[in-house]
Amino acid sequence: MISSTSNSRIKNISKLLKSSKERKEKGVFIVEGIKMFLEAKKLGLIVKAYFSESLFKDWVQDINFKEIDYEVVDDKVFREISDTITPQGVVAIVRMAKIQLDDLFDTESMCLVFLENLRDPGNLGTIVRTAEGAGISAIILSKESVDIYNPKVVRSTMGSIFRMPVLYVDDIRMAMKKAQEAGTVLYAAHLKGRKFYDEVTYEKKVGIVIGNEANGLTKETADQADCYIKIPMSGQVESLNAAVATSIIMYEVYRQRRNS
Amino acid sequence: MISSTSNSRIKNISKLLKSSKERKEKGVFIVEGIKMFLEAKKLGLIVKAYFSESLFKDWVQDINFKEIDYEVVDDKVFREISDTITPQGVVAIVRMAKIQLDDLFDTESMCLVFLENLRDPGNLGTIVRTAEGAGISAIILSKESVDIYNPKVVRSTMGSIFRMPVLYVDDIRMAMKKAQEAGTVLYAAHLKGRKFYDEVTYEKKVGIVIGNEANGLTKETADQADCYIKIPMSGQVESLNAAVATSIIMYEVYRQRRNS
Repeated sequence: MISSTSNSRIKNISKLLKSSKERKEKGVFIVEGIKMFLEAKKLGLIVKAYFSESLFKDWVQDINFKEIDYEVVDDKVFREISDTITPQGVVAIVRMAKIQLDDLFDTESMCLVFLENLRDPGNLGTIVRTAEGAGISAIILSKESVDIYNPKVVRSTMGSIFRMPVLYVDDIRMAMKKAQEAGTVLYAAHLKGRKFYDEVTYEKKVGIVIGNEANGLTKETADQADCYIKIPMSGQVESLNAAVATSIIMYEVYRQRRNS
Repeated sequence: MISSTSNSRIKNISKLLKSSKERKEKGVFIVEGIKMFLEAKKLGLIVKAYFSESLFKDWVQDINFKEIDYEVVDDKVFREISDTITPQGVVAIVRMAKIQLDDLFDTESMCLVFLENLRDPGNLGTIVRTAEGAGISAIILSKESVDIYNPKVVRSTMGSIFRMPVLYVDDIRMAMKKAQEAGTVLYAAHLKGRKFYDEVTYEKKVGIVIGNEANGLTKETADQADCYIKIPMSGQVESLNAAVATSIIMYEVYRQRRNS
């Protein structure tokens, strides 16, 4: 049992919780809580799990621990590696999924979401969760965007992080161009849109392109899209929250596809 | 000029920032920042404004201060009454709008949103902002819900707090009943819904009823609605974020009304 906060594995987890660079280099991230642990276990993604002493005592009869590498941690020390106020008693190091851009263009009815410089962890978590609900195929992010493996984002996806393909790209316009070459029509949410989001027929391969919370899309990225669309707003509202705007458009695509 | 943090007016503002009870008793709340101040000034809602010394020096030529009661505050002391990391230099005590339930049922094409025990400040702010965009008539909240005059909610409404009628009621089911008696059809977002949210025709007077983030609607409140509706979800998603779900339904009502 690990009983000291200066233990090297404990320090390693703290580093993975804090550092996006560390996560990227190792190709792993941290999930916390019973539900997330069981889901990662089912998918065979767990590199190593850490249980608090008290949870382990409760669970040792119920779970087949042979399949996974794990260690038990003193309850007090466990609090050091937990990112929550009331820890459930399990934290796991989990492998990131490896996704290739070209693999995303396969299906006929795919819908991709491109996010340029999205910055708010809560917004990204909400978009990933809603995207799974709306049947989106994958999410592609510019490399400056918030890290999906940030513990706050991981938690706010409510498990969708395991099921929604997410890919960071160095050059989002190049990724958009490749999608277009594979037959995808790209719609950028833009205040200069002449068409409302619900006036477009989203057929076959489509992509939705969404910009930064404060500044919207860069001109270059907006230019790469095939069409600008706008969400109508009554009153004096100048813009909607980025996660809400993305969700409204994703669900309009889903509505049309369910009803066609 | 106020130059001490122990000044009674400074303490009064700190109290109003922190205490929901204090705000309710006095019928006022605090707004911060230049944009919010100018909007409140235009609407004649300002009880008293406080400027940081440096902002006041910049502004004294440009703004007609005669119309409002104000004081200048030493820059260091101003930080005490600011709820932000980089204060813009103006904080104002603003009157709450007084709304009567019966006044909300007047218009033929109204759409009300009922929120039962909504708890997350960010969710409420986002709903108020999106509601204005979707042309919602008013928002009615159960009294256990998060306080809209909480500084975090005020900020996240992006000014919609001044334009969207919001009403807290002691008995949300009684308020729903009164709306029904005035000819309103109430649709509750509910996992047991047999109809999808986009299979309903939202005609004339409608209300959308949304429950708590973790537990959804109470049985009694769900029972008071006329119809359950459900947002379809693909994958393994069990529910959407409350603000996203409310936004998707509000924008479906707005879509139908714009296109009919």
